[in-house]
Amino acid sequence: MNVQPPFFQTGATVAYGGADARSPLAFRWYDKDRIVRGRRMEDHLRFAVCYWHSFCWPGSDPFGGETFLRSWQHGDDAMAMARAKADVAFELFRLLDVPFFTFHDVDAAPEGATLKESVANLNAIADLFEQKMAAAKVRLLWGTANLFSHRRYMAGAATNPDPDVFTYAAGQVRAALEVTHRLGGANYVLWGGREGYETLLNTDLKRELDQLGRFVSLVVEHKHKIGFKGPLLIEPKPKEPTKHQYDFDVATCYGFLQRYDLLNDVKLNIEQNHAILAGHSFQHEVALAQALGVFGSLDINRGDDLLGWDTDQFAMNVPELALVFHELLKGGGFTTGGLNFDAKIRRQSIDPDDLLHAHVGSMDACARALLAADEMLAAGALTAPLTARYAGWDGEEGQAILAGRRSLADLADSALTSGLDPQPRSGRQEYLESVVNRYV
Amino acid sequence: MNVQPPFFQTGATVAYGGADARSPLAFRWYDKDRIVRGRRMEDHLRFAVCYWHSFCWPGSDPFGGETFLRSWQHGDDAMAMARAKADVAFELFRLLDVPFFTFHDVDAAPEGATLKESVANLNAIADLFEQKMAAAKVRLLWGTANLFSHRRYMAGAATNPDPDVFTYAAGQVRAALEVTHRLGGANYVLWGGREGYETLLNTDLKRELDQLGRFVSLVVEHKHKIGFKGPLLIEPKPKEPTKHQYDFDVATCYGFLQRYDLLNDVKLNIEQNHAILAGHSFQHEVALAQALGVFGSLDINRGDDLLGWDTDQFAMNVPELALVFHELLKGGGFTTGGLNFDAKIRRQSIDPDDLLHAHVGSMDACARALLAADEMLAAGALTAPLTARYAGWDGEEGQAILAGRRSLADLADSALTSGLDPQPRSGRQEYLESVVNRYV
Amino acid sequence: MNVQPPFFQTGATVAYGGADARSPLAFRWYDKDRIVRGRRMEDHLRFAVCYWHSFCWPGSDPFGGETFLRSWQHGDDAMAMARAKADVAFELFRLLDVPFFTFHDVDAAPEGATLKESVANLNAIADLFEQKMAAAKVRLLWGTANLFSHRRYMAGAATNPDPDVFTYAAGQVRAALEVTHRLGGANYVLWGGREGYETLLNTDLKRELDQLGRFVSLVVEHKHKIGFKGPLLIEPKPKEPTKHQYDFDVATCYGFLQRYDLLNDVKLNIEQNHAILAGHSFQHEVALAQALGVFGSLDINRGDDLLGWDTDQFAMNVPELALVFHELLKGGGFTTGGLNFDAKIRRQSIDPDDLLHAHVGSMDACARALLAADEMLAAGALTAPLTARYAGWDGEEGQAILAGRRSLADLADSALTSGLDPQPRSGRQEYLESVVNRYV
Amino acid sequence: MNVQPPFFQTGATVAYGGADARSPLAFRWYDKDRIVRGRRMEDHLRFAVCYWHSFCWPGSDPFGGETFLRSWQHGDDAMAMARAKADVAFELFRLLDVPFFTFHDVDAAPEGATLKESVANLNAIADLFEQKMAAAKVRLLWGTANLFSHRRYMAGAATNPDPDVFTYAAGQVRAALEVTHRLGGANYVLWGGREGYETLLNTDLKRELDQLGRFVSLVVEHKHKIGFKGPLLIEPKPKEPTKHQYDFDVATCYGFLQRYDLLNDVKLNIEQNHAILAGHSFQHEVALAQALGVFGSLDINRGDDLLGWDTDQFAMNVPELALVFHELLKGGGFTTGGLNFDAKIRRQSIDPDDLLHAHVGSMDACARALLAADEMLAAGALTAPLTARYAGWDGEEGQAILAGRRSLADLADSALTSGLDPQPRSGRQEYLESVVNRYV
Ligand SMILES: [Co+2]
Ligand SMILES: [Co+2]
Ligand SMILES: [Co+2]
Ligand SMILES: [Co+2]
Ligand SMILES: [Co+2]
Ligand SMILES: [Co+2]
Ligand SMILES: [Co+2]
Ligand SMILES: [Co+2]
Repeated sequence: MNVQPPFFQTGATVAYGGADARSPLAFRWYDKDRIVRGRRMEDHLRFAVCYWHSFCWPGSDPFGGETFLRSWQHGDDAMAMARAKADVAFELFRLLDVPFFTFHDVDAAPEGATLKESVANLNAIADLFEQKMAAAKVRLLWGTANLFSHRRYMAGAATNPDPDVFTYAAGQVRAALEVTHRLGGANYVLWGGREGYETLLNTDLKRELDQLGRFVSLVVEHKHKIGFKGPLLIEPKPKEPTKHQYDFDVATCYGFLQRYDLLNDVKLNIEQNHAILAGHSFQHEVALAQALGVFGSLDINRGDDLLGWDTDQFAMNVPELALVFHELLKGGGFTTGGLNFDAKIRRQSIDPDDLLHAHVGSMDACARALLAADEMLAAGALTAPLTARYAGWDGEEGQAILAGRRSLADLADSALTSGLDPQPRSGRQEYLESVVNRYV
Repeated sequence: MNVQPPFFQTGATVAYGGADARSPLAFRWYDKDRIVRGRRMEDHLRFAVCYWHSFCWPGSDPFGGETFLRSWQHGDDAMAMARAKADVAFELFRLLDVPFFTFHDVDAAPEGATLKESVANLNAIADLFEQKMAAAKVRLLWGTANLFSHRRYMAGAATNPDPDVFTYAAGQVRAALEVTHRLGGANYVLWGGREGYETLLNTDLKRELDQLGRFVSLVVEHKHKIGFKGPLLIEPKPKEPTKHQYDFDVATCYGFLQRYDLLNDVKLNIEQNHAILAGHSFQHEVALAQALGVFGSLDINRGDDLLGWDTDQFAMNVPELALVFHELLKGGGFTTGGLNFDAKIRRQSIDPDDLLHAHVGSMDACARALLAADEMLAAGALTAPLTARYAGWDGEEGQAILAGRRSLADLADSALTSGLDPQPRSGRQEYLESVVNRYV
Repeated sequence: MNVQPPFFQTGATVAYGGADARSPLAFRWYDKDRIVRGRRMEDHLRFAVCYWHSFCWPGSDPFGGETFLRSWQHGDDAMAMARAKADVAFELFRLLDVPFFTFHDVDAAPEGATLKESVANLNAIADLFEQKMAAAKVRLLWGTANLFSHRRYMAGAATNPDPDVFTYAAGQVRAALEVTHRLGGANYVLWGGREGYETLLNTDLKRELDQLGRFVSLVVEHKHKIGFKGPLLIEPKPKEPTKHQYDFDVATCYGFLQRYDLLNDVKLNIEQNHAILAGHSFQHEVALAQALGVFGSLDINRGDDLLGWDTDQFAMNVPELALVFHELLKGGGFTTGGLNFDAKIRRQSIDPDDLLHAHVGSMDACARALLAADEMLAAGALTAPLTARYAGWDGEEGQAILAGRRSLADLADSALTSGLDPQPRSGRQEYLESVVNRYV
Repeated sequence: MNVQPPFFQTGATVAYGGADARSPLAFRWYDKDRIVRGRRMEDHLRFAVCYWHSFCWPGSDPFGGETFLRSWQHGDDAMAMARAKADVAFELFRLLDVPFFTFHDVDAAPEGATLKESVANLNAIADLFEQKMAAAKVRLLWGTANLFSHRRYMAGAATNPDPDVFTYAAGQVRAALEVTHRLGGANYVLWGGREGYETLLNTDLKRELDQLGRFVSLVVEHKHKIGFKGPLLIEPKPKEPTKHQYDFDVATCYGFLQRYDLLNDVKLNIEQNHAILAGHSFQHEVALAQALGVFGSLDINRGDDLLGWDTDQFAMNVPELALVFHELLKGGGFTTGGLNFDAKIRRQSIDPDDLLHAHVGSMDACARALLAADEMLAAGALTAPLTARYAGWDGEEGQAILAGRRSLADLADSALTSGLDPQPRSGRQEYLESVVNRYV
């Protein structure tokens, strides 16, 4: 293992270059100090680079091995490799000037021969992170524990048929949560890795849901005990790696949180690619989470509409992002959440610069979408027609119905006696789509 | 309009003919008085013929018109046509010897020029049904109101932006519920027809969910007021006709019922085709509904795994049905629910006999699957390995965890100090699949 | 039947208003006389309004009836209704100032009691079209025959198990082709409506393919006989209305045209919604058709990425269209083809203005995408990197291989003796995606 | 590396035990010497165990590592590991008593530091295979070269932008083809691994198709040169690992083979999981390949209807298999092809016995399906109605049309003058589905 610093050919931080900038290493839209709705763009978007895709994944897929040949992924001294990886990671954070990063325990530090050793490794790297964060001013959006890669978790962690695996997972999560706490993490994430099933032939779904409810409750209790203030975040995903993941989508997670009385402490981390795998638009998942009061944070990436697996590509689609950010801004924007790049460069993108270009291009697409969303919102382009459309419900009778002051019989009698014959009004979908096209 | 009775060429009730019967008008597996787990097969399966597909649909699709040319669908006197339709319907019920049927208000009786007239028409046909039911001993599994075909409902019924539409729908539902009650219906169904959206550009999702919650609550109150004992059933469907239906799947409906405090009065009517459109197996939806305590009834049909719309074909797949009925029997079987044929013959199946062959073939497939499920259950073929797999959770420590007697720190400490290293055990999926193949 | 002209509230032709125009009845990008790559925009885009969606469809779907209540769709005198429909159609052509329209025989004129009557009706309306076209200067992009709506075609037209249906279809196609010819149509389309199957249980796929090959061959012969110069166009679609359509996608149609020796006379009409239903991007289908020499024309619309049926929405997605038009311009643009709006307003878009807004919005999106494509092409933004990427194949050895001057053994020996160890080069996908974002 | 023979706990060859056998290590339906349509079952089904899934895959997936911990996959001496793997493989062949196996070059022997070394390794293992095959009487169904796992192939092999990669691939294929030849392989397979694209932004689709055509032509020439008699087989797959694979489906491959004049020498190897990923039923792909004269062999496995990636599960679905084998038997059965288990046990199936149970269960499902297909065919259960349905085409006029003795005008005139009004006949789908249920 031998990192020849610098890994990246450029040493200059990517900066805003104006809309006509032609360099792939300049932002055309992301101008971090520009004020949008009273906040700096950086504080709106709260970008985070993730550790796993950008520094741990070697470019492999189910049909082929490593393509990237990163020096820090090869060697005999796992802790030295982890430190070299951290050097490259913080170099990328600096070049991109992002305010946040995110990591799993095993992304940052190698697993040891025992849980004890793993925890020790994690804490040693956390020491290093503390130093680097102090120097760099980059913050931790969230930390998490990987409860799905090791073979002990092949049948789930909290939902494993073997309670010993649940117990082992508890050990890993406590350590990851405490490290997240001491690094000042804004949130803690519980992604349900293999919490799901391959076949109902060997699965007791009801037991497993109860196990999962118990596990999340334990983490909530511990979070309070240690004084961690940020929310826990669970991340909806419908399938992959398991055939059926228990955290299928926003609606499913909401039902789960209600069932196990977790709504006060747990919010959702929503990912575009997971949304479409579940048959929903990204906008739907965000709007629903806001409607149900469980919106937390976003994994910003994109799936391929024609493929059935999680491609985790960098988000580049401005029209789609603009509608999502319109929902976000309507809801007041992020509190503890942010835009985490749960996105990986394609396995053919083997040059160091590809890592830069991908982040810069996607940050720019997000910035442009944010500006478009802000303009739409400021103009009431979509909100004014929406209010008009539902005006009847704001009237006296509408409010009486919603408030429970009308029974079914009241309404039925009223419809019968008045000879009610409501006339439909145009939904104006094409007009509204054209309006959006003025802004994006 | 001119029905030349009899519509069907045969006048003989289809009977059990033994496994070697070759006639398409004999059952090979459905032997209604055979006792399975202490119940007659008829009482297990509780088959219901549905009115809409079998007597109202003319064979049209989005690219073509009528193919069936049913005499009772042509004429000037709508009420006479409705009575002729009822004659054919009860003739089919008799030929198939099914214990139940189901209908929407507008399937049974024509809409009038006003709501008042529509309600009168419905009650007139209900009078006819009462007579025919008394004579035939066929019962009503459930009734429902069609809140989606008329243009007034193009933007939803309860979730319409116009409260007048909500009010009109209340008038229609009260009438349908009361007719269902006087006909002795075992359940009342609320399928969310167009309760969903086409585009979020013109939709306030949060308002609409609240409207829907209010509407279902009103129906619950009215049901109690009139003394209707059966449950209300909502029917999950993810899409079609709208792009996004609010009753997406079992998990979504469960969250909705919790949110609006409806779990005591409302259960689910689960359909195979809707399950797969939502990305779930039929078995999953049934198992989940049972786990969450919201299982009600089944719309028995099948979708095409390779098509993206609701094909509503007759269920013929014995291996799939056997696993579903295995879940059903594990849960104790139906209470008020049953197997409703929400299935239509293909539009090329234009002969009267096709209606018979479809029902007979599917009833037989269900019967055979029920027997297979019973045998698997009796042998513990799947249940014994399942219990063994989770045995750890039935032990002292597993129970202590589930009962909340262990904190995260307790478990973490235990894992650390014991040097816990849980070893995975085979999931044996292929073995279990082979076992199932012995029974189906 | 009683059309109160004018149907549309505005009488003014939609005109280019500049990028800042705010009226939904002004173009912001479509400036028909603007020269792009030496051609007027109008001549590049060759927009055609289609008859069926805009003037014949009543707003129904499988779960509900008419919503639009168009006056010309109601009445007793079918020919008078057809003439009234033509009035509205030509009014829309005028308001939009489109150069083309398209129609099926049965869109334009009512089916009669016999084929003879149907043909007479068609010719009578064609007389009316001739007059109107002369006055309006709108031209016919293509005509076609509807071989799928009537119940005689329920099992296909050319691929029907009954040769009488094939014969009837021949009668209908001859009339439609001849009408298209006399109206100066630029192409003639053969969409395979129900040329496919519902189940292989009742289908002889090999026979049906041969029938279809024969039918298209007959139309080719007839086209030559009457001197029709335009190409025939077949339109790939994978499914719907049948479970499996024989013209599945571009590659399938290409194999079919080769097999039946039709490559000289038949090209393809490619639709976005059909592309994605087949699992392909629109860009893929266009690029493949060009590579295989079968590119003809485009049905410009869009499907919903999350729905499994043909939604035929108006195309509004500029980034997607820009890449498609980039392929189109690389290939030299349209010859006889054009952009046909095989797109329907949503069934909730019940106002006359919705028809205008939909077309204007989509024409504008196309115009903007054309300009972006032109700029990318002029700058070599995508073409220059592509040429560089394949430079090796333009070298001596690459050309020798492609020309067949190297055997497998030659190459194998060369690889072995030279110790060849080719090094991969970055695919730069994220960089290229960011580049595209500069233009759209 | 240290294989403690025997890997499997049983040493006894699995044998036919009759339909009531309860042991998972007995066949209930597969009775290899039973005569079906004049052939032994073994000679009909021609089962082959594949090397890659069963002996090379460690149980990893994109979210987790090795679960199987096979001893022969760990060690320092790659050739010793390859020999140990061969011992286990031939032990499994013996236990299952299968007549065939299949392998990729890199499954059998480790890649060396150079192509030369790789070829030498392959030939050394081929020597070992020769000895073992002589002793065991197991034969080679086909061999193939892996042109997709190494990073040099990340952008394709024959379709790589770099001709050096094409050349390297030629070296690998020559060696694999020659080894297949000397081992008496019945076919040689060319699976298009990464012959496809990730994005059209960096892909010249037309160039790449020509490259692929050239490559396959070179292999055809070499096959003739060395006297290899079996066909080449290409294997349709629509996506994965690339976003778009050039060998999308049967129809696409057929068009490709026509275009590059390869129909005489190349047939298709069709896989169930690839069929459904392309939107086709397995039965469709088999029927189409037979209709087009390109049917070769089958990769027998199954995908998950609700997942969008290649799960390669063991085929267990008797009703589906019965219809496929019905097509197969109608076409005369296999010539050089067979049923290759391109199927992997789930990654939780970590016991040695799981490998046995999976193969035994699937062999049995195939055998049972073959018997059902034979019975249907013998009874004319499906073929007789099919012949009747198309009888019109066997009549004089039908034959005249197909033979080209009728012009479009002839037919049109005939339809007009006769007042032709063809009446549709029932497709009887539900009846036919019920008929199939009698046999499976
Ligand atoms: Co994520
Ligand atoms: Co993801
Ligand atoms: Co239903
Ligand atoms: Co349905
Ligand atoms: Co079209
Ligand atoms: Co379409
Ligand atoms: Co395969
Ligand atoms: Co596969």
